[in-house]
Amino acid sequence: MGALAAGIAAFGATVGAGFANGMVITKTVESMARQPEMIGELRTTMFIGVGLIEAIPILAIVVSFLVMNK
Amino acid sequence: MGALAAGIAAFGATVGAGFANGMVITKTVESMARQPEMIGELRTTMFIGVGLIEAIPILAIVVSFLVMNK
Amino acid sequence: MGALAAGIAAFGATVGAGFANGMVITKTVESMARQPEMIGELRTTMFIGVGLIEAIPILAIVVSFLVMNK
Amino acid sequence: MGALAAGIAAFGATVGAGFANGMVITKTVESMARQPEMIGELRTTMFIGVGLIEAIPILAIVVSFLVMNK
Amino acid sequence: MGALAAGIAAFGATVGAGFANGMVITKTVESMARQPEMIGELRTTMFIGVGLIEAIPILAIVVSFLVMNK
Amino acid sequence: MGALAAGIAAFGATVGAGFANGMVITKTVESMARQPEMIGELRTTMFIGVGLIEAIPILAIVVSFLVMNK
Amino acid sequence: MGALAAGIAAFGATVGAGFANGMVITKTVESMARQPEMIGELRTTMFIGVGLIEAIPILAIVVSFLVMNK
Amino acid sequence: MGALAAGIAAFGATVGAGFANGMVITKTVESMARQPEMIGELRTTMFIGVGLIEAIPILAIVVSFLVMNK
Amino acid sequence: MGALAAGIAAFGATVGAGFANGMVITKTVESMARQPEMIGELRTTMFIGVGLIEAIPILAIVVSFLVMNK
Amino acid sequence: MGALAAGIAAFGATVGAGFANGMVITKTVESMARQPEMIGELRTTMFIGVGLIEAIPILAIVVSFLVMNK
Amino acid sequence: MGALAAGIAAFGATVGAGFANGMVITKTVESMARQPEMIGELRTTMFIGVGLIEAIPILAIVVSFLVMNK
Amino acid sequence: MGALAAGIAAFGATVGAGFANGMVITKTVESMARQPEMIGELRTTMFIGVGLIEAIPILAIVVSFLVMNK
Amino acid sequence: MGALAAGIAAFGATVGAGFANGMVITKTVESMARQPEMIGELRTTMFIGVGLIEAIPILAIVVSFLVMNK
Amino acid sequence: MGALAAGIAAFGATVGAGFANGMVITKTVESMARQPEMIGELRTTMFIGVGLIEAIPILAIVVSFLVMNK
Repeated sequence: MGALAAGIAAFGATVGAGFANGMVITKTVESMARQPEMIGELRTTMFIGVGLIEAIPILAIVVSFLVMNK
Repeated sequence: MGALAAGIAAFGATVGAGFANGMVITKTVESMARQPEMIGELRTTMFIGVGLIEAIPILAIVVSFLVMNK
Repeated sequence: MGALAAGIAAFGATVGAGFANGMVITKTVESMARQPEMIGELRTTMFIGVGLIEAIPILAIVVSFLVMNK
Repeated sequence: MGALAAGIAAFGATVGAGFANGMVITKTVESMARQPEMIGELRTTMFIGVGLIEAIPILAIVVSFLVMNK
Repeated sequence: MGALAAGIAAFGATVGAGFANGMVITKTVESMARQPEMIGELRTTMFIGVGLIEAIPILAIVVSFLVMNK
Repeated sequence: MGALAAGIAAFGATVGAGFANGMVITKTVESMARQPEMIGELRTTMFIGVGLIEAIPILAIVVSFLVMNK
Repeated sequence: MGALAAGIAAFGATVGAGFANGMVITKTVESMARQPEMIGELRTTMFIGVGLIEAIPILAIVVSFLVMNK
Repeated sequence: MGALAAGIAAFGATVGAGFANGMVITKTVESMARQPEMIGELRTTMFIGVGLIEAIPILAIVVSFLVMNK
Repeated sequence: MGALAAGIAAFGATVGAGFANGMVITKTVESMARQPEMIGELRTTMFIGVGLIEAIPILAIVVSFLVMNK
Repeated sequence: MGALAAGIAAFGATVGAGFANGMVITKTVESMARQPEMIGELRTTMFIGVGLIEAIPILAIVVSFLVMNK
Repeated sequence: MGALAAGIAAFGATVGAGFANGMVITKTVESMARQPEMIGELRTTMFIGVGLIEAIPILAIVVSFLVMNK
Repeated sequence: MGALAAGIAAFGATVGAGFANGMVITKTVESMARQPEMIGELRTTMFIGVGLIEAIPILAIVVSFLVMNK
Repeated sequence: MGALAAGIAAFGATVGAGFANGMVITKTVESMARQPEMIGELRTTMFIGVGLIEAIPILAIVVSFLVMNK
Repeated sequence: MGALAAGIAAFGATVGAGFANGMVITKTVESMARQPEMIGELRTTMFIGVGLIEAIPILAIVVSFLVMNK
């Protein structure tokens, strides 16, 4: 049952991170194309945003590794 | 059964946090591109917002660690 | 069965809070970018709103802790 | 089985309250940004609305506490 | 099995009431911001509407209490 | 099994009634804000509509009470 | 098993009738607000429409009563 | 198992008929409000359409009655 | 198991036919209201279309009758 | 198990064919109302399209008949 | 179990082919109504497209026939 | 269990390929109708795109054949 | 159980790759029709994008082959 | 159970990565077509974005390989 739980947690981590990262980076690319003079500022915010987003999925991956052998 | 519950809780934490963080940061990037003179103000609100959002997912991760061995 | 119920309750708490918080903070950021002179007023309402929203998820987390050992 | 039912009821309470509260507060913030002279009126309606919305979720939380030990 | 049924009924009551109340109050707030001179009329209709909506969820909560011990 | 069926029927009654009532009352509020001179006419139609809508959910609640002890 | 089937049939009857009635009455209210001179005509069509829609859900409720004791 | 099948068939009949009838009558009401001079023509087509739509759901109700005792 | 299969087939037949018929007749009503001079042509196409659509659901109802006793 | 498989295959056939036929015929009706001079051409394409669409659902119905007795 | 697998494969084949064929032919009909001088070219592309789309569903039907007796 | 897995893999292959192929060919037909002078170029890209898309579904069909007898 | 897992992994690979490839190639075709002078540049990016997208599905197919015999 | 978990994790990885990659690359292609002078900048951001996105799915694939034999 532990292996199944590891799979579910990894499933959630990828779906949640994929949705959030996909939206943020998509909008960053779109904004860069509209206002080229702000590329540096937007890319910095994108990195901060992706870092903030990935905090919870990384914790879920940790949960996934911990429950793997139970 | 505890491991499965840990997986479900971690699943929910990532999906909920991913949706909320993704929307907030996406809109922040978009707003920054529209009004560059407000970058500081918007980024501050983004940090506060992400902090408020992650309160519940962190509690869910805590629940996940607690039920892991039951 | 108690652990599973704890996981489901934590799952619901994060999804519900994530959806509501995500929408409120997203719209606050958008409104701040449109009307910078109202930043104080909007941020106050955002804090009140997030407080009101998180009342029920916190109760669900409490339910989650209570059913954990049953 | 009682613990599981408590989890399901808490799940529903957070999702229902989160959806309704999220929509009401989001629209209040948006309306305040559009018409700053009506802040008092809008915030009053928001409090009444949130109070009306949370009547049923609170009852569901009560159901959740009652079925917990069955 | 009765406890589970109580949970399902409470789940439905909150989701149904949350959706309906959320939409009605959201639109009322929006309409008040557009036409401030009709605040009294709109708020009266909102109270009537919320009352009509909550008739069925309250009955579902009653069902929930009745099946709880079966 | 009867209790579970009672829960499912009550669940359906609230979701169906909530969706229909929510839409009708929401649109009534919106229409009243647009054409204040028709408030009486619209509110009458709203009452008739809500009455027609709640015929089937009430029957479902009756089914719910009848199957409760089986 | 009969009770469960009764619950499912009642569930379907309310969801189907709720969706259809909700849409028809919502649009009738909207049309009445746009063209006040046609109120009589529109309300007649609404009554015919609701009558036609409720034919099948009533049959489903009948099915629900018939399978209740099997 | 036959009772369950009867419930599923009745469920499908109401959902399918509700969706189709709801859309047709909604659009008829909307069209009547736009072109009052065509009320007779539109209502005739609505009756033909509802008749054609309800052919299959009635057959499904027949299936529902037939499998009820198996 | 045969009765259950009959229910599923009847469920699919009504949902598929309901969706298709609902869309076709809805659009026919809308087109007739826009171009009254083409009523005959549009109604003919509607009858042909409904006939073509109902070929597969009728076959599914036949499948439903055939598997009923297995 | 064969009867259940027959039901699932017939379910899929009606849903797939219903969606595709519904869309094609709906759009044909709409196009005919816009350009009456092309009625012949459009109706021919509609017949070819419906023929192509129904190739796979007919095969699924054949599968349904074949697995019925297994 | 083989019969069930045959049913699932046939289900997928019809849904996938129905969605793709429905979209392609719908858009072809729409384009033909807009630019009548390109009917030949569009119909050729439609035939090629339908041929390419049906490659995978036909393989799925073959899988369906192969697993039928296992 | 192998036959069921073959069915699921074939199901996924048709749904994935159907969605992707349907979108690509639909847009190609639309683009050809808008810019007839680019028919050759667009059709070439369509063939390359369909080839790239069908790489993974063909692999899934291969998986389907391989697990069929397990 | 290994065969079932292989089927699920292949299912995911085709759905994920189909969605991503379908969107990328669809938008490439649309962009080529709008700006014919950029065909080379766009097609290059399309190839790079499809290559990047298919990295994870290929790994999932590999997982599918590896778990096939377990 | 380990093989099943491997399949679920691989499923999640492909769906999450496919959604995010598909959106990012689609928007990059669209932006390149609109502003050809920014091709280098956009493609660089696309590579960084895809790299950030694939971090979590790769971890899920690692989870998938680890739980495979449990």
